[in-house]
Parts: sequence; structure tokens; C-alpha cells
Amino acid sequence: MEPILAANADLAWMLAAFVFVLLMFPGLAFFYGGMVGSKNVLNIMSMVISTLGITAVLYVVIGYGLVSGPSVGGWGLIGNPTDFIGLTNWLTDDASGATQTLYFAAWFILFAAITIAIVASGAAGRMKFSGWLVFAPIWLLVVYFPVAHWVFSADVDDDYKGGFLLNKVEIVDYAGGTAVHMNSGVAALALAVVLGARKRRMERPHNVPMTMLGGGILFFGWFGFNGSCALGANFLAQSVILNTLLAGSAGMIGFAIIEKWREGHVTSLGIITGVVAGLVGITPAASSMAPLGALLVGIFAAAVVAFLLSFKSRLKIDETLDAFAVHGVGGIVGTLCIVLFASEVAPAGVQGVLFGGDPDIIWRELAGIAITCTYSFVMTWLIAKGLDKLIGLRVDEETEMVGLDTVLHAETAYEIPSASVGHPGGGLASLSPAAAAESVEKSMPASTPPAQV
Amino acid sequence: MEPILAANADLAWMLAAFVFVLLMFPGLAFFYGGMVGSKNVLNIMSMVISTLGITAVLYVVIGYGLVSGPSVGGWGLIGNPTDFIGLTNWLTDDASGATQTLYFAAWFILFAAITIAIVASGAAGRMKFSGWLVFAPIWLLVVYFPVAHWVFSADVDDDYKGGFLLNKVEIVDYAGGTAVHMNSGVAALALAVVLGARKRRMERPHNVPMTMLGGGILFFGWFGFNGSCALGANFLAQSVILNTLLAGSAGMIGFAIIEKWREGHVTSLGIITGVVAGLVGITPAASSMAPLGALLVGIFAAAVVAFLLSFKSRLKIDETLDAFAVHGVGGIVGTLCIVLFASEVAPAGVQGVLFGGDPDIIWRELAGIAITCTYSFVMTWLIAKGLDKLIGLRVDEETEMVGLDTVLHAETAYEIPSASVGHPGGGLASLSPAAAAESVEKSMPASTPPAQV
Amino acid sequence: MEPILAANADLAWMLAAFVFVLLMFPGLAFFYGGMVGSKNVLNIMSMVISTLGITAVLYVVIGYGLVSGPSVGGWGLIGNPTDFIGLTNWLTDDASGATQTLYFAAWFILFAAITIAIVASGAAGRMKFSGWLVFAPIWLLVVYFPVAHWVFSADVDDDYKGGFLLNKVEIVDYAGGTAVHMNSGVAALALAVVLGARKRRMERPHNVPMTMLGGGILFFGWFGFNGSCALGANFLAQSVILNTLLAGSAGMIGFAIIEKWREGHVTSLGIITGVVAGLVGITPAASSMAPLGALLVGIFAAAVVAFLLSFKSRLKIDETLDAFAVHGVGGIVGTLCIVLFASEVAPAGVQGVLFGGDPDIIWRELAGIAITCTYSFVMTWLIAKGLDKLIGLRVDEETEMVGLDTVLHAETAYEIPSASVGHPGGGLASLSPAAAAESVEKSMPASTPPAQV
Repeated sequence: MEPILAANADLAWMLAAFVFVLLMFPGLAFFYGGMVGSKNVLNIMSMVISTLGITAVLYVVIGYGLVSGPSVGGWGLIGNPTDFIGLTNWLTDDASGATQTLYFAAWFILFAAITIAIVASGAAGRMKFSGWLVFAPIWLLVVYFPVAHWVFSADVDDDYKGGFLLNKVEIVDYAGGTAVHMNSGVAALALAVVLGARKRRMERPHNVPMTMLGGGILFFGWFGFNGSCALGANFLAQSVILNTLLAGSAGMIGFAIIEKWREGHVTSLGIITGVVAGLVGITPAASSMAPLGALLVGIFAAAVVAFLLSFKSRLKIDETLDAFAVHGVGGIVGTLCIVLFASEVAPAGVQGVLFGGDPDIIWRELAGIAITCTYSFVMTWLIAKGLDKLIGLRVDEETEMVGLDTVLHAETAYEIPSASVGHPGGGLASLSPAAAAESVEKSMPASTPPAQV
Repeated sequence: MEPILAANADLAWMLAAFVFVLLMFPGLAFFYGGMVGSKNVLNIMSMVISTLGITAVLYVVIGYGLVSGPSVGGWGLIGNPTDFIGLTNWLTDDASGATQTLYFAAWFILFAAITIAIVASGAAGRMKFSGWLVFAPIWLLVVYFPVAHWVFSADVDDDYKGGFLLNKVEIVDYAGGTAVHMNSGVAALALAVVLGARKRRMERPHNVPMTMLGGGILFFGWFGFNGSCALGANFLAQSVILNTLLAGSAGMIGFAIIEKWREGHVTSLGIITGVVAGLVGITPAASSMAPLGALLVGIFAAAVVAFLLSFKSRLKIDETLDAFAVHGVGGIVGTLCIVLFASEVAPAGVQGVLFGGDPDIIWRELAGIAITCTYSFVMTWLIAKGLDKLIGLRVDEETEMVGLDTVLHAETAYEIPSASVGHPGGGLASLSPAAAAESVEKSMPASTPPAQV
Repeated sequence: MEPILAANADLAWMLAAFVFVLLMFPGLAFFYGGMVGSKNVLNIMSMVISTLGITAVLYVVIGYGLVSGPSVGGWGLIGNPTDFIGLTNWLTDDASGATQTLYFAAWFILFAAITIAIVASGAAGRMKFSGWLVFAPIWLLVVYFPVAHWVFSADVDDDYKGGFLLNKVEIVDYAGGTAVHMNSGVAALALAVVLGARKRRMERPHNVPMTMLGGGILFFGWFGFNGSCALGANFLAQSVILNTLLAGSAGMIGFAIIEKWREGHVTSLGIITGVVAGLVGITPAASSMAPLGALLVGIFAAAVVAFLLSFKSRLKIDETLDAFAVHGVGGIVGTLCIVLFASEVAPAGVQGVLFGGDPDIIWRELAGIAITCTYSFVMTWLIAKGLDKLIGLRVDEETEMVGLDTVLHAETAYEIPSASVGHPGGGLASLSPAAAAESVEKSMPASTPPAQV
């Protein structure tokens, strides 16, 4: 009887964790939206949010089986979707009280959608929205679903084999350092390479508070992301929650130190980018680190990312929103930290080579990194290049100059009159309504003349 | 012993789900706030947030009993509040470990408050704030509490009867398609009719990213809303979570297709409106759909809403923020989807008539729609008209032109200097502090002269 | 077997509650960020977010033991950190299924970090960021860790004694009215006194919707904060959730009444400040109030805060963001409410003196208030004064005028072109892309000339 009831509690946590991850979508849309220019903000937000629509349909129809179905031929390359089309077979409660297939379908949709949403950042400010709506589902089918199968699908029994990276190579990757972060970071780079640089490359972030809120929401959602991979309300979840907090928090320290050294100041954008880099770093390593190790993972991942970004202006590639640096490199650094200083007493029981662990871990992790990154880069480049030949992925120059929001979406992000009312005031506003009305009346006409009605 | 312990896990999920719903209030305030002009944003946000204050007091004093108390005379029209005044009788733990009355009181406050908050949207930009503070509690007492009793209150035993729509008509309405969505959408329409159109009717949304974040937060909160109606961490909750994700995600597809067809482009505002319309559609249907059905509910609900909105500019009614279309019509479409293609294997066990289900479902659902919408429209119109005669609900013309924020609240939403610093930059800001300081110094005076201190 | 399984459910709720509290950091950053001028917004947001980095490292190394370790000498003044350095001893699952030390470490980091983050508000707009990075960890070590030990650390047995305020004075302080709110409010005041007033003191809030969202997120997070102090998914948690909702919601009523009386209008900033003041008030009292009592706590706490703030412009102290009024005074009022009208039937079982309770409660609570506030003010003043002599805490006048974002962080918050496109529009945007593109083209050059590329 005991496992049934613990299962109910596990499910309570899994349900909550799912909801946390959902908030990462508006969070990522805000994180990226604030970093682009004000003429492209709605376009990048639409790209990010659209991933949910694309992935939801694709997953219910065929994606769930491709990722989590029994490996075709037992080779660990791709799942067999036969039993999972439409997910109709899974509508019956198995009475275990446990987390069942319908939940996992919802959960996997979010994992897949957030991955392709990160890829969107590589195309910021210069990709046709229609092109995106063709590219994204193809990328999920050709790149994400196979890689997720390799990494996320465990062997059940001899007739139901999972992915080769998890079960044969036996990589240590707690919550998707490969399938989610390296995969999306490298794919964003490949997409950026195919699209080419923007004309006005060094656009300043148009709304940094927006990016900071977005980053803060990502931090929040990450506890759902990493926490749900413990599959229940258990000790592992507690350890992972702490490590995720430590690495995200320490990430800002690693980034700030490098930024201070290279640029002479600490920026708010650096602080929040450091948090995200630290979180990426701990994603594969959250189950294999002691608390002090988690702090180091955050500091190292963010410091390496910051160091890389300090050379960014010299590069020819316009990987606008730094997904390759943050997610690709951050994920690699986190994985290398496992190799170096995983703690045997942490729940995963893996020992890093610096503590005398089995050197086997080196090739396992390097194989995971190399296979994921190579496959992702090559396939993404081929898809993007092919689509670019077929339908053209990049907007024309005029569209790029005018802004994608106006031309592609017929919208402008802001309609805020420029004139600020110049009265001093405070927390408990001290203007009389009459005076305020008068002052607004005076300042409004310039930007919104009544004649415009 | 088993049910006691499963009850603890159920409570863990119910507590989390409650907190998710709370975030819908700032979410809705942002969703609506971004859609109005910048001179009315604080007013609509204040209307939305104020509903919590109004409802909290009213519910503790009398509302809980009116909704959830035993039906007066067993007629199913209104609950008897006698035992629930002040909720003082429910301060003792019944030791079951289960979700008890104090929790349900908190939970029902949020349901009531979010309903009247949606009604606020019908009055955007032209209602006295003092008028709102009188209208809202009366509306809760006269419209919401009865309708919620009809739909949400289940028969307990012969001495404790619930509402007639749920227990006698036996409507299928999983989480409030009638009491929350149709009710609020229709009431917003009636309030808009009484108030009349704004002078400058076609105000553009002043901050679309704000609306998109608000919509994203609503998506997040909806999992608490729909998920908590499963009353625990169980199979139903898993099914509902998946269906809610699918319908919200597919909603953007339905809306985008119609928008592309009718307007020639896909807007970000359309994407997020489609999400909300899809979520409204699945609210009554979340327990009775297979995954493919949930996708269709989202697509249909959003497509019908989008089609309706494409005629909006021809209408004389200024239902500014589309609550009638999104919540009223969206809720009706979702309910009709149950009638048509509910899946018998889904947890509710209802079969749609297209699959050969009992045609009885047709009149049950139509009765629920007709009774709720008629009662809500007529009573809301009477309340609004009566108050308008008595105290005047609409602001004067000058106030409307100047903006409600300044005149009613003595505030302005933004004090952001107009001049943008024109330096190029990037993720890792490349300006030296000195250069940046200089450039800001040059650009500041225009909008904030030091003399103004 | 029963306690083990209930423990799993408790853990499920505690995990979720932890994640809710995390969102308070971007929430507080937005709450404060919107209230300062647009030239200082990134600075205050960086101060708030930086507290996570500082606290995470400090807590893992030594803070956890200082707060929660066995009292040195059994005196209840400070914990012994010996067993807790690096937290490495706590990596082993005790197989109870319960909430264990690793979780509590993560949880306590958030409590400590949010406290020092509130202190940051006292320094808004005039403190060196480098000075903050030195001040904050010293303050945690000297002020927060001891006070948290006094209040949060329960006696375990004769060899493991907790803090003197909790165990000897036996104060009633449910979730940190003393250690978190009075402590931070008083410290913010002391820091503001040492730094002196800003040159342009009455800066208007630059973005009120931002502050309202921030406040809404704080409301959301507060359910995690107060709810987690129930230590599980139990009856106490249900009671606390309801009381927190009621006091936060009623807070806006208390604030609005005073604001209407003193200023003649109700502001949105007042509404959201009232919510926060109500939440502060209920923090110590959440376990000892009946629902009607919780409504009163919210109304009283917010009304007193509003009354105080209405005299603000006459004061010489520039405690910019009102942390002393909201957190210091709000916390004191909430504590006095326990003394006066705590309900014996509420879970804490404490009876207020107005209901005939033991007058002992008076001196217990007054001692808690006096000791916390005095220690916090004196020590904070000494630390700030000392650091000001040693390294200088205040920025120079030019920096203050230009803005801290530009000078200290080499960033500007916004790059939003001033010109609004003056076309009318609506929910379903009605511009043709071509027309829109043209209009943007015409309006862009003024603020972002192509020559600037």
C-alpha cells in the first residue's frame, strides 16, 4: 500500500512542477523580447509563444511515441509511435495514484517546446514568421525527437528499449543538458549562420527591466524543470532544488567577476545572464553535486559564458541573443563539471575524476556532447539551408530596417506618449486631480492630437 | 487509512493550485492594461485588483454560504448562509487530512473575484471608479452568488441540497464555463451597453508585450483553475492538465488561421487572444475530452472568437476588451463541443452526439447556456441602469479625454524620458561608463530639466 | 507507516511553496524598480537580485549553522555552525520521506535573501553598487543570522537549544514579523539615515504598471512564504492561506480609505501598497486569527501605514521606497493585533487580551518588537557608518544626477523610440502591413536615424 500513497504525493509535486515550467514561455518571451530592438519585440515573442501551438499538435499526433515509444529495432535511435498516436490508449486510470502517460505527454510537450523556443533566438530580427512556422515543426521531427529519445528514454525491459545515449553510452545528464540546452544552443548557432547577420547588428536591448523579469521567471520555472526530473516529492527533489538555487545564484557571481575584469563594470544584464548560465550549467549536474559543487558549477558555467561573450563583437556570426554561448557552452561546462568534480555522496552517486572517480566518465560525457552537438548542428544547418533555397527564410532588407513587428505582424509594441509629466511626486501621489489633469492636457496634444480620432 | 493519506497529497496539490490562480489577478490586470491606452492603464488595473478586496470581505461575511450553503427550501436557487457567516465554525481541524472548508472559502473567493474582474473589462476607459466600487459588490450578490450556487454546489444529502443546474438539469460544466465565463462575458456586454461607447473608440493597445505577459500568466494560472477542480492529485487532474495545455496551445492556431484569412497577417495579440479563447473553451470541457478533442476545442473556440472579432469595427457596442467574444462566446463554443464530440473514455464519461451519445445532452447544455446568459444579461443591465440613474456611472467627457488615470487616480502610468540614447550596443554592453554618462547627460535635459526639481 | 506517507505529501507542498517564494525576487525587483526614476531602475533591480548570489554562498559556508545550529552555550543568541559548513553532512536521505536539511537550507536562503533585499530599498538611487556588495554580507552576518536564530530556531532537546526569543520569551510570531519585516524595515531606515537624502528627493515612480505587477507577484509569493511555515499540507496551511488572502485583500481597503480621506483620491499605487502592508501585517499573525480577524489585521496594518505615509513629505529622512513604514510599522501593527484580538479557536490557540486572554502576551510581544528593532537599528547604523568612513557608501553628486544605471552599470533601462504611431486600431489590428510600414518609416528617423548605425 505504501508505494501507492507515496505516488499520490509524488503526483502532487509533479503537477505543480509542470505548471512552473509553463511560465517559462512568457518568461523566455520577455527575456528575449527585452533584448531586441523595440521594432522586433512582438516578432520574437510570437516566435517563442508559437512553439506551444506547434509542439502540442505534433506531440499528440506522433511526437510522444517518437520520443518515448519502444525503440525501433531496439537500436535506441527513435521510438515507435504506433501505440501513442492521439494518446487515446492512455485515457484509463491505472488506479496506481501515480504519474501516468497523460501527464508525461503534457510534460514532454513543454520540454520540446522550450527547446525549439530557445532556437528561435538565433533568428531574432530577420526571419520570416511564415518561415519559422515551417522550420520549427521540421526541426522538432528531425532533430529534437530523436535526440530526446536518445537521452530521455530509459530501457523498460527487453521488448521496450530506450535511447542509446542513456542506456548504452550511459551518459550522466540529469535534466537535459544535451537534448535541451546543447541541442538548442548549437541549433540556434546553425540557424544564425544560415540566415546571416542583421544589417544593424549591434541593436541595444530596448527594455532591460523586461529582460530581468523574464530571467527571473526562468529561474522560477527552472525549479519545475529540474525538480520534476526527480519524478516525485523525494530526497532527490530536495537536493536538486537546493543545487538549482545555488548554481543560479552563484552564476551571477561568475558572470560579474568576468564582466568587471573585461569591461570595468557589472551590468544588470550580466547579472541575469549569469543566473541563466548557472542554471544551464546545473541542469545536467543537479543530481551529482554536493552544495559546494553546485556553487562552483554556477560560477564556472557563467564565467566561461561571460568570457566568451566578451569576444562577441569580433565575431562575424550574429547569434543575437547568445543562445549558443549560454545554452550550448553553458551546458557543456556543466557536463564537464560532472566529469571533474561530481560528488559520490550526492544522489546520483557519480564520482568526478578529481576525486578519484572512474575515468570512464570522461568518454561517456564527451561522447554525449560530441554526438548531440554534431548531429544538431549538421541537421539544423541542412534544414535551414534547404528551406532557405525552397521558400526563403530571411526577410527583405526594407522589412528588416522598418522592423518585423510592423511589416510581418502589422503591430507596434508600444503606444506610449513621449511627454512625461514633469511634476515631482512620491509614493503617495501628491498632485491634486485638477492640477494633474491640467498638466496632462498640456502635454498630451503633441503626441496624440484629438484630430487623430 | 488509505483515503486519509491520499487526502494529504490531494491537499498538497489543491494548495499549490490555489496559489496559481492568485497570479491570474496581476495577469489579468496586465492583459487588459496593455490593451487600453496609456492614459487609462492604471484605472483598469485598479478595477481588476480591487475585486479581491471587495470579494474577500463579502465572501467571509455572507458569500460563502450563499454559494455553498444548503439550498434554501431545497430549490437549488440560493444557499443558506446561516452556518457560514464569518466562517468561524470551520476553524477546527477535522483530522481527515483533507481539503476543508477554510481552503474552499479561499478558493471560491478567487473564482468569484476573477469573474467580476473580467466584467470590469466591459467598462474600460469610461466608468467612475467610485461607481465600480458600488457596482461590483451588488453584481456579486445579485448575479454571481446565485449562478455559482446553481452550478458549483453539489447535493450532499436530502437535507443539504445544491444548485439546480448542476443537480437537476445535470449540466456538464467542468470548471465554470457558465458561472465564470459566460456569466462574466455577458455581463461585460451588458455593462458596456449601459455605459455606451467611448468617444475615441478605437484606442490602440498601448503596450502589447504587457498584454502578452498578462496572457501568459493567465495560461499559467488556468492550470490552477482547471486543475484544482479535479479536487486532488489524481488521474482526472492529469487528464485536465493535458487538455488545458492542448486547448490553450491550439487556440493560437485557430485564431491565427482566421486572422490570416480575414486580415492577411498573424498578430501577436491574435496569438495570445487565441490562447485565452482556447482556454475558455476547454474550461467546461476539460474532463470530457480525449487529447485530440481538446485540440479541436481550442481551435474551434478561438476560430469562432476571431471570426466574430473581425466584424467588431462595424458594431455599435464598445465592448472594449472583447470579454463577451472571448469569455461569452468562447464558453458557449466549448460547451457545444461537449455536446458534439465529448469522448466517452475521458474521465467524465460523457459521449457527444456525433459519437452516438444520448441526445439529452443537447437540451441540458442549451438550458445551462440560455439560463446563465439570460439571467446575467438582464440582471446586469438592470443593476447598471439603476446605478446609472442613481449615482451616474460614466465619467464626464473631459475626464475621458484627459484620461482616467490622471483625473480619477491622480497618477500617470509612465515617467520615461522620451530620448533614447542612440549608441549601438549588445548583450554585454560595450559603452564605457564615462561615454555613456556623457551621452545621457546630453539627452536628458530635453525631458527632465534640472530646473524642474 | 502513516507519518511517513503524510510526510511525502507535506514535502510536495513544501517544494511548491519554496518555488513560489523564489518568484518574490523578480517581484520585489519590479515592485521597487517601477517606483524609482527611470535612470535608477536597473540599479535597484540589481541590488535586489544580487542578494541571492550573496546569500547563497554565505549560507552554504556558514549561515545555515549560525541560524539553525545548536545555540552556542545554550544561550539562544547564535547557532554553532560546526556541523553545517558546506552542508556536506546532509546529503544522505534519512528515508523518512520528510522535508530534510537540504530543503530547509534552500528555504532559509530565500528568507535571508528577501530580508536583505528589502533593506536595499532604503538606499535607492544613491549607494555605490560596490558598497552594497560589501554592506549586504556583513549585515547578514551581524544582523540577520543572529535575529533569525533568536526567532526561527526551536529547542530540539537539552543539547540542542534554539533561539531565546522563540523559546524563552516565547513570542508569537508565525512567519517572521520580527526577523524578516521589522528587521528589514528598521534596517532600511538606518541605512537611509546614514546615506542621507537624495538631491532630487521626490522622484516620481517611472512605471506604475511595473510596480503593480511586482506587488501582485509578491502577493503570489507570500502564499509560499506564509504557507511553507505550516511545514506541510495540513489544516494549519489551509487556515494560513485563507488568512493571507484576506489580509492582503483587505489591506487595499484600509489604505484606500485613508488615502481618500487625506488626499481625496484612491491611487493604484495605494491599492498595491495596501496589499503589501496587509500581507506584512498578517505574517506574524496568520496562525492566530479567525477569518474576520485576518480582515481586520489587513485593514489596520494598511491604514496605519497609509496614515504615516501621508506625513512623509514633511520628514527629513529619505526612506525612498517606504520599507520602514510598510515592513517595520506594518509588522509591528500585525504583532499588536495578535496581542489585542488573536482568536483562541485559530490553530495557534492564542487568545487576545480583548477576548480575555492572558496579559502575559503583551510583554512577550513588546519584548520581541523592542529587542528586534533596537538591535537592528543600532547594528545597521554602526555597519553603515563604519563602511561609509572606510570605503564611502554614497555616490558622488554627478552620478546621482546622471543616474546610477548609466554611471555604475553602463546601461540604460529603455531604448524605446518616442514617436508613437498615431493610427487608430483595436484588438484585432486593422492596419494593412504596407500602411503600417509606411507610417513607422516616417516616424522612426526622428529618434533612430540610420546614420547612427
